Amino acid sequence: MTDQLERLNRLPLRDNLRGLQPYGAPQPHVPVLLNVNGNTHGLPAKVHAAIVAAVGEAAAGLNRYPDREFSQLREALAGYLGHGLGPSNIWAANGSNEVLQQILQAFGGPGRRALSFPPTYSMYPLLASGTDTEYVTSPRAADFTLTAEAAGEAVRRTRANIVFLGSPNNPTGTALGLDVVEAVYEAGAASSAIVIVDEAYAEFARTGTPSALSLLPGRERLIVSRTMSKAFALAGARGGYLAAAPEITDALRLVRLPYHLSAVTQATALAALEHADALLANVEDIKGQRDRIVEELSALGLAPAPSDSNFVFFGGVKDPRVVWQGLLDAGVLIRDVGIPGHLRVTAGTEAETTAFLGRIRELV
Amino acid sequence: MTDQLERLNRLPLRDNLRGLQPYGAPQPHVPVLLNVNGNTHGLPAKVHAAIVAAVGEAAAGLNRYPDREFSQLREALAGYLGHGLGPSNIWAANGSNEVLQQILQAFGGPGRRALSFPPTYSMYPLLASGTDTEYVTSPRAADFTLTAEAAGEAVRRTRANIVFLGSPNNPTGTALGLDVVEAVYEAGAASSAIVIVDEAYAEFARTGTPSALSLLPGRERLIVSRTMSKAFALAGARGGYLAAAPEITDALRLVRLPYHLSAVTQATALAALEHADALLANVEDIKGQRDRIVEELSALGLAPAPSDSNFVFFGGVKDPRVVWQGLLDAGVLIRDVGIPGHLRVTAGTEAETTAFLGRIRELV
Repeated sequence: MTDQLERLNRLPLRDNLRGLQPYGAPQPHVPVLLNVNGNTHGLPAKVHAAIVAAVGEAAAGLNRYPDREFSQLREALAGYLGHGLGPSNIWAANGSNEVLQQILQAFGGPGRRALSFPPTYSMYPLLASGTDTEYVTSPRAADFTLTAEAAGEAVRRTRANIVFLGSPNNPTGTALGLDVVEAVYEAGAASSAIVIVDEAYAEFARTGTPSALSLLPGRERLIVSRTMSKAFALAGARGGYLAAAPEITDALRLVRLPYHLSAVTQATALAALEHADALLANVEDIKGQRDRIVEELSALGLAPAPSDSNFVFFGGVKDPRVVWQGLLDAGVLIRDVGIPGHLRVTAGTEAETTAFLGRIRELV
Repeated sequence: MTDQLERLNRLPLRDNLRGLQPYGAPQPHVPVLLNVNGNTHGLPAKVHAAIVAAVGEAAAGLNRYPDREFSQLREALAGYLGHGLGPSNIWAANGSNEVLQQILQAFGGPGRRALSFPPTYSMYPLLASGTDTEYVTSPRAADFTLTAEAAGEAVRRTRANIVFLGSPNNPTGTALGLDVVEAVYEAGAASSAIVIVDEAYAEFARTGTPSALSLLPGRERLIVSRTMSKAFALAGARGGYLAAAPEITDALRLVRLPYHLSAVTQATALAALEHADALLANVEDIKGQRDRIVEELSALGLAPAPSDSNFVFFGGVKDPRVVWQGLLDAGVLIRDVGIPGHLRVTAGTEAETTAFLGRIRELV
């Protein structure tokens, strides 16, 4: 044990944190970074200019506390989502991780149980542990799909209080059918389950993929979470949000820290939303690169999953560790998510995608 | 019960949230706002310009996740605090409330107990409840002071796992002697207590008031928390931080959400720290107004507590409700903290302070 860990373990840490390693690995400096699912495209110049102007205006009043209710931002997010939503349906926080943490603070905790379907977003178990919520899982099919029947049965069997449904799911990339969401919601009635559809990647979905936003009317236990980190290219600004019944946003008011969303964050997010068109044009470009990756990997005899995201999960890799290292040696960092025979790559700019495809062609 | 509350209570809320009212009162529009302890002085022009420039630079990379370790900011905060501290001693989050929440997530939780000495900061019990930490209190003396003996005895009696010491304390305004901190730390050895000295208002302390930062060497359970909301006039930007042993900051890495501090927040805080001199000049002006309030209220026969803060807590008010309303009728909002015979007022600009003093002279 290192000296650092020894000193840490002499502190009166909570039991569920004992023995964990502080997550402090250096962020890598590699020419082509396709290992995290942020947006590989920079902000368009006019969005950058709008953010600087908006922050300049907000900075004049930074000595005062921000609008605790972030009213303008909720209005703008409701307008962006459509589906007849209004500001009272919207909640936001510093990244969708904080949104999910607040949901667990309101509806999870000791004696409550959260369910998810791995492989899925690696933060769900950590968020559960951080709020002393029991975390249980139910497997997907061998091809990583999830049927309405299997999902509903898992909810009934576990009597889950909270259900996480990634759609499009990370790391597998595919969106769920709305029948799965409906079945989970119905099955959750017995345990009054809060059902969270995590649509962090929704804007990248293939044409015709429906959003769970359309299921919100009449379902007060349903929450659709979103983020500005992906489609809006604002990973650095930390803006997550959700849409739900007004009583859900009222419940989150009971647990949020006062003034949790800074005036600078509110101004940045608002400026980006005013230029949603320019940002969604980049999304179309990324979808093109994503489809190109799926096609070319298929042509190489690999097995990419259908992707509704800005990344591609692909199987058929004989030795993922070797391919991963071979790419890194060529300056291309992708993600080994620890699933045998599989790797995950984020769709880059055209040049980044070309670099990835060129190198993997040599490796497989 | 309103329709809103009825719908809220039909949700599967956690038991400790049931019956609570969502905190959503409108933020008031009154000419002279002396009810919250932010900084009444706006940012100097050159600090404003530096923030805009820094955010402009950061905005160019907002599509990427921020520096998870906020290394530059930790370096700058360590330099600002002095006392031989380095970056590994520093932690920061979105406001000192989030810093305190993370401490409770690491060291509090089910089966653990937090102790404080009311009247004190009203968020301590809420933060404890939000992390399922038991919350216990021990009273101050009739004049709201706290002796080393009484504080140490309370720690031993309650076997607290976490102790909150506000110094300068909100709402009473007075700093604790270091003998109190030392006694609490020593008494906490038996229960391995984490001792938090909340120095949110430290920069406003009277000359010669020592900081608990000087006690950090050799005390790995001691934490000194600070904020940029008060002296640095950045309430709107949400920047809280702490100084402690490196193993404390490692422990907080286990519970923080990844990338919890946005690139925009980091840039804003850094720009302000580079202009600490200009901001601390405003602090001197505020201390002048604070001393003026103490003197004039004394002359009016009221009983202000010695203040090391940017606010004054004063007793001897026959009917606080009437005085509070009389001030509000004249466009001056101060805080009734619910303590019989007492009110609290934040030191304003010279004009704001004059408006407050002119009106209260007529009322008492």
